[in-house]
Amino acid sequence: MAEPKNILFIMFDQLRFDYLSCAGHPHLHTPHIDWLASKGVRFTQCYVQSPVCGASRMSSYTGRYVSSHGASWNGVPLKVGEWTMGDHLRQLGMDALLLGKTHMRADAEGMRRLGLAPDSIIGARLSECGFDPIIRDDGLWAFGPDGAYDDQESPYNAFLRAEGYDADNPWHDYANAGIDNEGNIASGWLYENARRPANIREEDSETPWLTRQMIKFLEQDAPGRERPWMCHLSYIKPHWPYIVPAPYHDMYGPDSHKPVVRDARELENPHPIYVAFTDNAIGQAFRRDDVREAALGAYMGLIKQIDDQMGVLFKHLEASGQLDETMIVITSDHGDYMGDHWLGEKDLFHEPSVKVPLIVYDPSPAADATRGTVCDALVESIDLLPTFVEVAGGMPRMEMLEGYSLLPLLRNAKVTGPREFTISEYDYSVTPMAARLGVAPRDARLFMMRDARWKFIHAEGGFAPMLFDLDSDPDELIDLGRDPAYAAVRDACYDKLFSWARRPSQRTTVSDQQLIDRRGKSRRKGIVLGVNAADEIDAELLEKYQGKARQSHGE
Amino acid sequence: MAEPKNILFIMFDQLRFDYLSCAGHPHLHTPHIDWLASKGVRFTQCYVQSPVCGASRMSSYTGRYVSSHGASWNGVPLKVGEWTMGDHLRQLGMDALLLGKTHMRADAEGMRRLGLAPDSIIGARLSECGFDPIIRDDGLWAFGPDGAYDDQESPYNAFLRAEGYDADNPWHDYANAGIDNEGNIASGWLYENARRPANIREEDSETPWLTRQMIKFLEQDAPGRERPWMCHLSYIKPHWPYIVPAPYHDMYGPDSHKPVVRDARELENPHPIYVAFTDNAIGQAFRRDDVREAALGAYMGLIKQIDDQMGVLFKHLEASGQLDETMIVITSDHGDYMGDHWLGEKDLFHEPSVKVPLIVYDPSPAADATRGTVCDALVESIDLLPTFVEVAGGMPRMEMLEGYSLLPLLRNAKVTGPREFTISEYDYSVTPMAARLGVAPRDARLFMMRDARWKFIHAEGGFAPMLFDLDSDPDELIDLGRDPAYAAVRDACYDKLFSWARRPSQRTTVSDQQLIDRRGKSRRKGIVLGVNAADEIDAELLEKYQGKARQSHGE
Repeated sequence: MAEPKNILFIMFDQLRFDYLSCAGHPHLHTPHIDWLASKGVRFTQCYVQSPVCGASRMSSYTGRYVSSHGASWNGVPLKVGEWTMGDHLRQLGMDALLLGKTHMRADAEGMRRLGLAPDSIIGARLSECGFDPIIRDDGLWAFGPDGAYDDQESPYNAFLRAEGYDADNPWHDYANAGIDNEGNIASGWLYENARRPANIREEDSETPWLTRQMIKFLEQDAPGRERPWMCHLSYIKPHWPYIVPAPYHDMYGPDSHKPVVRDARELENPHPIYVAFTDNAIGQAFRRDDVREAALGAYMGLIKQIDDQMGVLFKHLEASGQLDETMIVITSDHGDYMGDHWLGEKDLFHEPSVKVPLIVYDPSPAADATRGTVCDALVESIDLLPTFVEVAGGMPRMEMLEGYSLLPLLRNAKVTGPREFTISEYDYSVTPMAARLGVAPRDARLFMMRDARWKFIHAEGGFAPMLFDLDSDPDELIDLGRDPAYAAVRDACYDKLFSWARRPSQRTTVSDQQLIDRRGKSRRKGIVLGVNAADEIDAELLEKYQGKARQSHGE
Repeated sequence: MAEPKNILFIMFDQLRFDYLSCAGHPHLHTPHIDWLASKGVRFTQCYVQSPVCGASRMSSYTGRYVSSHGASWNGVPLKVGEWTMGDHLRQLGMDALLLGKTHMRADAEGMRRLGLAPDSIIGARLSECGFDPIIRDDGLWAFGPDGAYDDQESPYNAFLRAEGYDADNPWHDYANAGIDNEGNIASGWLYENARRPANIREEDSETPWLTRQMIKFLEQDAPGRERPWMCHLSYIKPHWPYIVPAPYHDMYGPDSHKPVVRDARELENPHPIYVAFTDNAIGQAFRRDDVREAALGAYMGLIKQIDDQMGVLFKHLEASGQLDETMIVITSDHGDYMGDHWLGEKDLFHEPSVKVPLIVYDPSPAADATRGTVCDALVESIDLLPTFVEVAGGMPRMEMLEGYSLLPLLRNAKVTGPREFTISEYDYSVTPMAARLGVAPRDARLFMMRDARWKFIHAEGGFAPMLFDLDSDPDELIDLGRDPAYAAVRDACYDKLFSWARRPSQRTTVSDQQLIDRRGKSRRKGIVLGVNAADEIDAELLEKYQGKARQSHGE
């Protein structure tokens, strides 16, 4: 073992915290990810800063809360002024590379204001969330009557075409569709097709394709190899469309599914915002056993494929001697309800949505004491960037970064966690649920505060809060947000959320130490205040203000 | 009268709200400013967003609260990504010019990150807070044993030298010093010299000098004259050093001074933060009658000189026919305690510090109904920029701007004010008071919430709040912040501050309308969620996902 030189930052998309065998799934065996957990630390309480791709990722990439960086939903551009992983790490001599998805939209107007051409090096990095992309592929190559969802070119579609897959959009027609009994394309967008095998050779599907790109980078004398690198290997899966090629498509029948976590009490006198989400088409679909079973079978197959690909990747790292010099992180940008709480997708703050897996393997001998352990401290996605800064040999710039380095938790089993509570936010202003509730964009915002016992959700717009007692109700089935008996608990939760809301998140151009160093310094630069006569202070302070008057211009 | 084409945005520095005869001062006659008030609207409740120069000005120039733009004290660089007056107005075809002070420090590191050269047009504007400077002069050319307070070159010193004033630093030795009985320089930094006439020809002192520069701009065919302009005429006075040339130096003896507003009860069981400020050298000095009388005499003289110069300027505007096409604003960046509440300077939130004069003359016929009226609505310095945007013919971009245009108040006497409460903030982390209190930079922050009745001040760092009942105690002498009888009032005040703290201040890259317009749009771009089978939805939504499979790659 040696000190980590490089960082492999693996993010899956929509991977629940509890769908790994190391996290207790009884039927889904993930031996390769489990192996990494046995070599590192598995965090059981890692929360994303927003349960939606774009906002969550912008928090991971900036190390800041969503209301600090402002990119509060998919497609909200990240302000040009926000520093990203690349800014922090390149200053320390570490490259920041990208293989896969970021879901970042560039701040084109902000760049125009500053005269920054998108095809300059600086402009290109700003457009790519600070990464130097080896491959950028956001993985959703959807098309509808109004055109493409994503205006970029798909590197994955280019690959499939080069391999001979014949279609306008092979991403859909092969990687994300099967064939029905009449020989027609059976789209993976429809849950009824989720049990079919995707019409693609397994090795050409998205997860193995991206893994091969990563191995290619590790093998070749790539530009990034000269200097230490942090590579963000960012998979699109197991995100929908829910469909997977053989043999993964029929590995997980209903007998291997965990029981759905939902309760009739959740639908009695429910919170209006919760209702808006349970009543949408996704929530309604996932109430159906056939839909859940089909989607879950594919979802678990996608995870099994992921685990197998992790095996390929880890084996390569080990065989090439890179395991000892590479910190490896496995995490996700949010989870997936999969029918729990009468919901599909993500968006709200129940554990299946807002909690993610986090496994960190640190090759440093200093981390030997924690290998194979689990850590129950409350940690957040924004803790990764300060961790990486420390691995790169720097001091996290806490005037910008709002998380805490995980190194103390990785290298000292006895240390307590860095925070008393965790925060996540959700801006639903672009969703149909906001229209249905008649809520303006300013008010279509939710804030979660979760401490050791309580999960508290504040909703703007005059709604009551939601509250769950994680001690007595770990499955979060009973909303105490309007129960008079819990008024004092809610007040205490509000206090915590309020203290967070007042954090100085925008004082980013000066460090605490610089502020402290400035205390009282202006006096020795001639700002002499509070002094009536010269004999009250050190003569030195007035030396520039003395002498014979050379001229007289008075009355 | 005609619609305003240009905007003359005049800011004084450290001008109290109540030191004008139109605002009720019984002895200080300011007929020229009063004349402007008789032609426009005088706002009696205008609050700055921070009672310190730099932070207050950055709020005026960005239209955003201090914790939104982050430049929380003098010398904290304004982030390169923050839009300023120049950005908003130039898009609408209006120039943004500067004559005088901004107290802005450029974000040099942020500019380097983006490869922006300070000597490019964009870089120069970023360095000058978005203005095109005709003259930039921050007006504090202090020198001490550790060197210069301000590293820039002083245009005013260059002017004085050209006029033959012989000194290394004529700003200090002539404009801000007198001559003592032995013929020595008598520095204006020392209060004991405040009653002496400054050793300068009155017309060469700072206020007339800057006024002449403004008139020169109005007279000549300056570049900015082709297009509509907003010119920020930003005076350094009546800011300290307290000294003024003859004949203004001895116009205002103690008989003309307003009684000091302070009470022994303020020093009984006082709030520790208040104590830290009353106990500093400035507070201690202003307890002395001789200090207050000397400083106040000079301060009033400086204001009288200002008013005379306003007469010169307004006369020029009228004679040149520009009065009918120019909106004129008079305001300040904060006030001056002048011994009230046992304090000198500004910094805290009593009315003499945080409330400023605001007079707006709008030449539009639509404003005829309000001429010569006063408006008691709660307004803020950040309301100016949205007002200017409307004058320039635009719609304020409320995703960035946090104030409200004053045009409704200027053009409709019946309208109510835009807000229920006003907010001001103070970051004292660089002051010796923070060191004395042992407070970290994160905790050295104060927030004021003032509504129709209450002024409430929250202090970070575990301190109690402060509370004043402006109905029963308009002079703010009795701090109810720890009085058990007012717990419910404090809770209500906290609720207001909390709602403000949660505002979405960083979601600046997308407008509310854009968010609303996006609702539900992804479905027609092929993101088909919540659908089990094709017959459940409009066939059009699946048209890109159908057809015969061209190849089979399955098992």
